[in-house]
Amino acid sequence: MITELISVGTEILLGNIVNTNSAYLSEKCALLGLSVYYQDVVGDNEGRMRDVIRTALDRSDVVILTGGLGPTEDDITKEVTADLMGMPLKEDSHSRKLIDKYLKEYEKNNPQRRITKNNYKQAMVPEGAIVLDNHNGTAPGLILEKKGKTAILLPGPPNELKPMFEEYVVPYLQKNQPEIIVSQMVKISGIGESQVAEEIQDLIESQTNPTIAPYAKTGEVHLRVTASAENEKACRKLIKPVVKELKKRFGENVFATDESKTLEEAVIDLLKEKDLKLSLAESLTGGMIAQRIVNVSGASEVFGYGFVTYSNKAKHKCLGVKKRTLKEQGAVSAKCAREMAKGACKASGADISISVTGLAGPGGGTKETPVGTVFMGCCYKGKAIAKEFHFTGNRMRIREQTTAHALAMLRDCIIMSR
Amino acid sequence: MITELISVGTEILLGNIVNTNSAYLSEKCALLGLSVYYQDVVGDNEGRMRDVIRTALDRSDVVILTGGLGPTEDDITKEVTADLMGMPLKEDSHSRKLIDKYLKEYEKNNPQRRITKNNYKQAMVPEGAIVLDNHNGTAPGLILEKKGKTAILLPGPPNELKPMFEEYVVPYLQKNQPEIIVSQMVKISGIGESQVAEEIQDLIESQTNPTIAPYAKTGEVHLRVTASAENEKACRKLIKPVVKELKKRFGENVFATDESKTLEEAVIDLLKEKDLKLSLAESLTGGMIAQRIVNVSGASEVFGYGFVTYSNKAKHKCLGVKKRTLKEQGAVSAKCAREMAKGACKASGADISISVTGLAGPGGGTKETPVGTVFMGCCYKGKAIAKEFHFTGNRMRIREQTTAHALAMLRDCIIMSR
Repeated sequence: MITELISVGTEILLGNIVNTNSAYLSEKCALLGLSVYYQDVVGDNEGRMRDVIRTALDRSDVVILTGGLGPTEDDITKEVTADLMGMPLKEDSHSRKLIDKYLKEYEKNNPQRRITKNNYKQAMVPEGAIVLDNHNGTAPGLILEKKGKTAILLPGPPNELKPMFEEYVVPYLQKNQPEIIVSQMVKISGIGESQVAEEIQDLIESQTNPTIAPYAKTGEVHLRVTASAENEKACRKLIKPVVKELKKRFGENVFATDESKTLEEAVIDLLKEKDLKLSLAESLTGGMIAQRIVNVSGASEVFGYGFVTYSNKAKHKCLGVKKRTLKEQGAVSAKCAREMAKGACKASGADISISVTGLAGPGGGTKETPVGTVFMGCCYKGKAIAKEFHFTGNRMRIREQTTAHALAMLRDCIIMSR
Repeated sequence: MITELISVGTEILLGNIVNTNSAYLSEKCALLGLSVYYQDVVGDNEGRMRDVIRTALDRSDVVILTGGLGPTEDDITKEVTADLMGMPLKEDSHSRKLIDKYLKEYEKNNPQRRITKNNYKQAMVPEGAIVLDNHNGTAPGLILEKKGKTAILLPGPPNELKPMFEEYVVPYLQKNQPEIIVSQMVKISGIGESQVAEEIQDLIESQTNPTIAPYAKTGEVHLRVTASAENEKACRKLIKPVVKELKKRFGENVFATDESKTLEEAVIDLLKEKDLKLSLAESLTGGMIAQRIVNVSGASEVFGYGFVTYSNKAKHKCLGVKKRTLKEQGAVSAKCAREMAKGACKASGADISISVTGLAGPGGGTKETPVGTVFMGCCYKGKAIAKEFHFTGNRMRIREQTTAHALAMLRDCIIMSR
């Protein structure tokens, strides 16, 4: 089915926000087997919005609109779409109740805010539309069907849009597809994109169902294996041998075969499995590694201490890096990385640690130690190793790559530990 | 002038990449005084692309296309646009020379890659078009003018698009504008969006030139003051009294009047100015605050130590939080936040510190301490204060808001210190 995404929002046209909703919806639609041929952005102007929606309903089967469902006079997505589809608005008592409930809750937590009459505008729905409850805001979602065309209206804020899409829209769209699409992600760390691509070129070229699509992420490569068949079981059956083959080819570098699992989650799982306590010692990343570890709910079971030792003094005082090391080898050295890692274990009583020290720039580079030079250390049971890396890009890119590679190195160290 | 942006790219329609080019171009166009009324995304399909470009040339004065200028058969943006505008293609010898030069350089650095004949397709340009040199790739940019309509074709990769836009397209568009547009940002922390909006409602309603537009960011509110006049000096003259008025109304809550200055930079500047050394003690944020401080190149002058004390043990061992406090008040308490802040100063010898401890969820909430409860402490010269916050959203949102508010609180503390 030909699908079109329309984002309504002046803030997108002004460049104040990036249109991440369309990227999210496009990816989801592709997974559902819908062909997104067009994305459009239009403002809250009635004439222009009307033209864009009319064109979309002409050329596409499914039109998904986001934004412009708010309580103000400017918000007219629902009004314009309902009018174009010939479905007059009337109040939906269920939606009105939900809005009341949500606003009362909100008022309790935010005593300075008050309910305005405007909010009840959001309870007006096109006659015959399917109403999608909004558990995270006041604007209900809507599905309008007429003459073989479907318009799906969703609220703009991602924290309202995404749960609503997953809960209601995905099952609705799946129901209308002759074949279903199932995909599984194989996530790889420690190998670059080009090497991954080379090692599976034969698979990519020979496969049609399932297909394999690689996505390069910072420090990770994700392979999406996608099959289409009459039901989920048949899809899974097609996917299984391909995932098995990928796991065979990439071995321990595969850290997840689950869409939602992150590298930090894989690390935490391994630490729990091996009953190891982690500590971190960060210089140039300044807390980015710890931050990602703490992303994982329940990280506290295995992670208690992180040291951000940005100055040489801190490296010496908190982690016991020798003054001589700092003087002779410098802070950006393998020796310093090893001593940092050892010190992190010692100061915290952890079993395993990762340290990073390097030069994120933009200044400070020399011929011997150019910007982007990073040393990482790993300590396990008193033994420490170090590894040298050279990253490119600006300060932020270098720090992000360092973080991703530190997590990958940590994972390798945990796997090798015994 | 009515402006439309068309991004050509299947990878955007599949959701593999987020359309950051359109956000970039929209912001730039707004600054140039161009009204972006539409953004579209279309794939490499000739029929659909032709329809989208034809519609754009009908309804808009300036159409900026990005992507689809590559060397392969799939890349047809130039061919379709030139055909629609009736400007046949012919080889441009200057572009061919530049392509040769670029590729020879590239081959030298990447011996495994070879020049293909395809690349010379990129030297074909519509007759009468303005050719924009590409210093970062092989596809030249193009400006096509016909019958009062302008099509601007730019390469898709941001590292090619952005320098080309700044160098050639900005001056070209400026030349065609009767007035120029200049804007200045006033950045505010410590006050919420609705309060800011309320306090300047009279200004927003009464101003037409300059205009004031508020943008809500996590923990910050940005006000863009935009004036149009015949030259930059006249614009600045219009902007000046408005910025002065905003500074008067928001006082010390204004942390920057410079587009590029971040809250962490403002904090570092203040620390340098007052010659204070900073230390951080983080629990739920797990390094996010330190991470932002280290974003700033040169942070090492004022920041040496950060403690990620995620476990109670770490809070006690690294920061000297009393066991009794942890037992009686718990880790999520004002007392613990104060002791963490004091401990961070003591352990590092810093002059000032910020601590955060709270419940990011999703689990662990109680009636007394619901998820989102956060205590922040600030210690200066041995004296510590604490403040309670309640944030909403998921784990990541709560941690991001905590980080932003911690930086704002830190800034307040530095300002008040003497």
